[in-house]
Amino acid sequence: MKGLMQNQPLLLSSLLKHAERFHSRTEIVSRTVEGSIHRYTYGDAARRTRRLADALTRHGILQGDRVATLAWNTFRHFEIEHGVTGIGAVWHAINPRLIPDQISYIANHAEDKILFFDSSFLPLVEKLAAGLSSVKMFVLMADRAGMPRTTLPNLLCYEEFVDLGKEEFEWPVFDELSASSLFYTSGTTGNPKGVLYSHRSDILHCLCICGAYAMGIAPRDTLLPMTPMFHANGAWGLTHAAPMVGAKMVLPGPKMDGAAIAELIDREGVTMAAGVPTLYSNLLQYLESRGTGAGTLERIIVAGSAPAPSLIEGLERLGVSVNHLWGMTETSPCGTSSQPSRRTASLSPQDRLRRKTSQGQPIYGVDIKIADERGSEMPRDGKSSGRLMVRGPWIISGYYGEDKPLLEDGWFNTGDLAVMDDDNYIQLTDRAKDVVKSGGEWISSIDLENLAKGCPGVTEAAVIGVPHPKWEERPLLIVVPTSGATVTAQSIRAYLDNKIAKWWMPDDIVFVDALSYGATGKIQKMELRQRFSGHYSAPARGDSARVPQGTSAQSNAS
Amino acid sequence: MKGLMQNQPLLLSSLLKHAERFHSRTEIVSRTVEGSIHRYTYGDAARRTRRLADALTRHGILQGDRVATLAWNTFRHFEIEHGVTGIGAVWHAINPRLIPDQISYIANHAEDKILFFDSSFLPLVEKLAAGLSSVKMFVLMADRAGMPRTTLPNLLCYEEFVDLGKEEFEWPVFDELSASSLFYTSGTTGNPKGVLYSHRSDILHCLCICGAYAMGIAPRDTLLPMTPMFHANGAWGLTHAAPMVGAKMVLPGPKMDGAAIAELIDREGVTMAAGVPTLYSNLLQYLESRGTGAGTLERIIVAGSAPAPSLIEGLERLGVSVNHLWGMTETSPCGTSSQPSRRTASLSPQDRLRRKTSQGQPIYGVDIKIADERGSEMPRDGKSSGRLMVRGPWIISGYYGEDKPLLEDGWFNTGDLAVMDDDNYIQLTDRAKDVVKSGGEWISSIDLENLAKGCPGVTEAAVIGVPHPKWEERPLLIVVPTSGATVTAQSIRAYLDNKIAKWWMPDDIVFVDALSYGATGKIQKMELRQRFSGHYSAPARGDSARVPQGTSAQSNAS
Repeated sequence: MKGLMQNQPLLLSSLLKHAERFHSRTEIVSRTVEGSIHRYTYGDAARRTRRLADALTRHGILQGDRVATLAWNTFRHFEIEHGVTGIGAVWHAINPRLIPDQISYIANHAEDKILFFDSSFLPLVEKLAAGLSSVKMFVLMADRAGMPRTTLPNLLCYEEFVDLGKEEFEWPVFDELSASSLFYTSGTTGNPKGVLYSHRSDILHCLCICGAYAMGIAPRDTLLPMTPMFHANGAWGLTHAAPMVGAKMVLPGPKMDGAAIAELIDREGVTMAAGVPTLYSNLLQYLESRGTGAGTLERIIVAGSAPAPSLIEGLERLGVSVNHLWGMTETSPCGTSSQPSRRTASLSPQDRLRRKTSQGQPIYGVDIKIADERGSEMPRDGKSSGRLMVRGPWIISGYYGEDKPLLEDGWFNTGDLAVMDDDNYIQLTDRAKDVVKSGGEWISSIDLENLAKGCPGVTEAAVIGVPHPKWEERPLLIVVPTSGATVTAQSIRAYLDNKIAKWWMPDDIVFVDALSYGATGKIQKMELRQRFSGHYSAPARGDSARVPQGTSAQSNAS
Repeated sequence: MKGLMQNQPLLLSSLLKHAERFHSRTEIVSRTVEGSIHRYTYGDAARRTRRLADALTRHGILQGDRVATLAWNTFRHFEIEHGVTGIGAVWHAINPRLIPDQISYIANHAEDKILFFDSSFLPLVEKLAAGLSSVKMFVLMADRAGMPRTTLPNLLCYEEFVDLGKEEFEWPVFDELSASSLFYTSGTTGNPKGVLYSHRSDILHCLCICGAYAMGIAPRDTLLPMTPMFHANGAWGLTHAAPMVGAKMVLPGPKMDGAAIAELIDREGVTMAAGVPTLYSNLLQYLESRGTGAGTLERIIVAGSAPAPSLIEGLERLGVSVNHLWGMTETSPCGTSSQPSRRTASLSPQDRLRRKTSQGQPIYGVDIKIADERGSEMPRDGKSSGRLMVRGPWIISGYYGEDKPLLEDGWFNTGDLAVMDDDNYIQLTDRAKDVVKSGGEWISSIDLENLAKGCPGVTEAAVIGVPHPKWEERPLLIVVPTSGATVTAQSIRAYLDNKIAKWWMPDDIVFVDALSYGATGKIQKMELRQRFSGHYSAPARGDSARVPQGTSAQSNAS
């Protein structure tokens, strides 16, 4: 027996429809790539998006066709997201921070038909164009006056493209399981892999993140998604959530230094921001130096990697509450939330802080287990580390274009290692690929890094496993010293001593000027592994004691 | 092209599964029908519900079979709700406040196979049993020691019934469009009509009500659903939402006077309650007389009918914020929310209060229009009154067992009349059936009632349209005077004078000791209409002036 309720498909076009009907005067404010501030409303956005959609259709884009963007968070990117998905085509948001070869690879792998791009990416697109075999049309996201001279063939101007469409366009109705958007994610090895969301998974994910137990987004909010729309699912789903609840949205474009972000907060009355830890570090530093508080900013979503305790404390001193969520492209991305549990109120400030740096609790819709190699769930004792596995209606079932079965008995293996405590808080212990495997035992690179960052004079720290002739791998600690501070390998070793098991002590400590971070705020360990792959292989080092005296420390730290 | 995300059906069994996995120690506390306090956890509830489900299966209950309850909000009712729906059978929650003939009618119409009931309803069930043609088994919701002597055939004891099942039972997976539960709603005329929810509509509705823009339910909350589970959708969906977010739940049984509710709030740390205005009036009166504040209670959901401004002010004086939502059985029920909009902060306290008594703004998932007779949307000017029409994935498509098409061009006509202002706040002006149609013009019974309730000495007021030989209908005002106060028809007329158009003035004012309210807190106007149907037909009254001097006022008010 079927229920007798209206069975309307869950489609992304419903979001802008709702915002236009009931929040038509609420603003979307963008800092454009060119630097100026653009301001319009959901009503304007909805009308222009329908014109864009009509124009896409007139240009022959059909349901299922892939349409790519290389762009920052601005109103035009928002229109493309909703226009492309609204007609049942697939929005492919390309991460411009990938190396050019990878961009070519994924655009060809996705068989993108049109590429929309910001003017700042013109040199890149000019370079790549000849190799993009499926792209029939390039559209530069600018008005006629902003169109540059270029050698690019088939280049259209975005505003002229939109002008081709009619505002009266009506959104088609189709199967909610249809693909909506495609995001490639880089693995440890091989080419990036595509995660293909559906309209159903997107709407369910969006309903979830609006929940008070997840991000808790309300109509009175003004959202500032600093996380780029080319990350998982359109700025972590916020470009869906804002029209769903009718929140004002502030899109920061590419300019995300502390001063630029603080200016947007002040001028637009931002109540909630979302981004990776690095961006907040910059913002905090700026706000602290300015000394006038955080203004209207009430709370932030931080994800991508765990925020340092000092970052959380700094923001909370300014009255900004911190909600750390965990997720990945394959999980749409919201998988957990560190919102307070029933037991949080009774915890010590220290334990409460620890929970905020943890990955939080599973939320409804994302079943999670910490499993051993055979898939059996491990004790929730805060100690038993295992593979973090997830399943649910907004979790990946397979990568785009890959036949190889991805799931293990219905579960997706995230590649993270984690423990779960008896209040179901999850703590990542390491990426499976980042763990250092020394003589059959595992060393957590995250634990070592966090400890090292506590050592006076250490600003940033990375630990990698480096091939070792005797122990398979041994940890190498790479440190960015605090400017002006005196720090040596010896002082760091002294600091670590007695805080870790003897065999965890890094065999060497290397000082560098800076570490490079990926788009999601994670240290680019693959780069470090390549750079230091022979570090313990040279006879002099390979034969050294388990805890040798590094020589590179002094040389680089001076 | 289909997305590549896990496509799991949205089933109600996922709620208890989630709560058991991640909130297993969170409590469900019940005041039983017998008066004692029962206390267990989601872990216990999940295990017992699986046993119940297994027992139902062993008793031959199949997917689609209807299983009825006549019960108050307690843990056993919660188990039945989740056990019955979890196996794909249909939970039919009967409103025990219906008259016995109606109960028989709906149990037979639904073809209920089993009837579970609280001990307090035994006399009722004994009386009805012979006429319940489809019911093969009665189960009294008690343990063996609580089983009374009865003439009822085929009577089982609930705890023995549960004991028959195995804890290892696994929830079946089936189509999410399957029917989940059945609630009958009384119309103006004819027999009650059945609203048949689906698993899909229930889960979508639940994700929505947990949203910060709707009820905003969080894991740290302790919920007290005073609204009965036999109302729309298991206490307005709260018996779904609590396990979804892992909130503690306090089920009050039948005892809902101010002292009993205050005791539960104090002892269990209730943060949020849900119920109709009458219950909060009682609670407020008690809390004010006690003089020790509202304790842990932070906020309330009020629905069923609009709260009086004095009720909102009284609760907010105690630090309890009031969220008024509008909905009906046919809308699952959540249709709107009066959560603050972007513009609320800039309003005067008076206008903010007015918004809280209004029906609030449409929420995502419920499209709303105020339409004229042809279905065209009316201006959103706060003045143009029209038919309140809704559509969306948790809105009814047709009544159970009725072939007649219900929707008008995809929209459900709620039967309410409303205006919408330019910030999209909705204000009900009347039930279409309650409006007084006088000489071709409409008079709002709600407006007249609200005005009359402001008159000193008036505690409750109802306005009905009474057939009139000349004007088709004329308003009759029925008043419950404040105990000890002196109020007369003349003093009320003097109060209303100049506040309303002359032709709105009730032709007569009648004083009564009490008004009777339906289960959702609405005045039983059908009763009043029957009782006073001839009031303006007697020659002496029918010929009286448009604004006659009533005589019944003094006689009843003395």
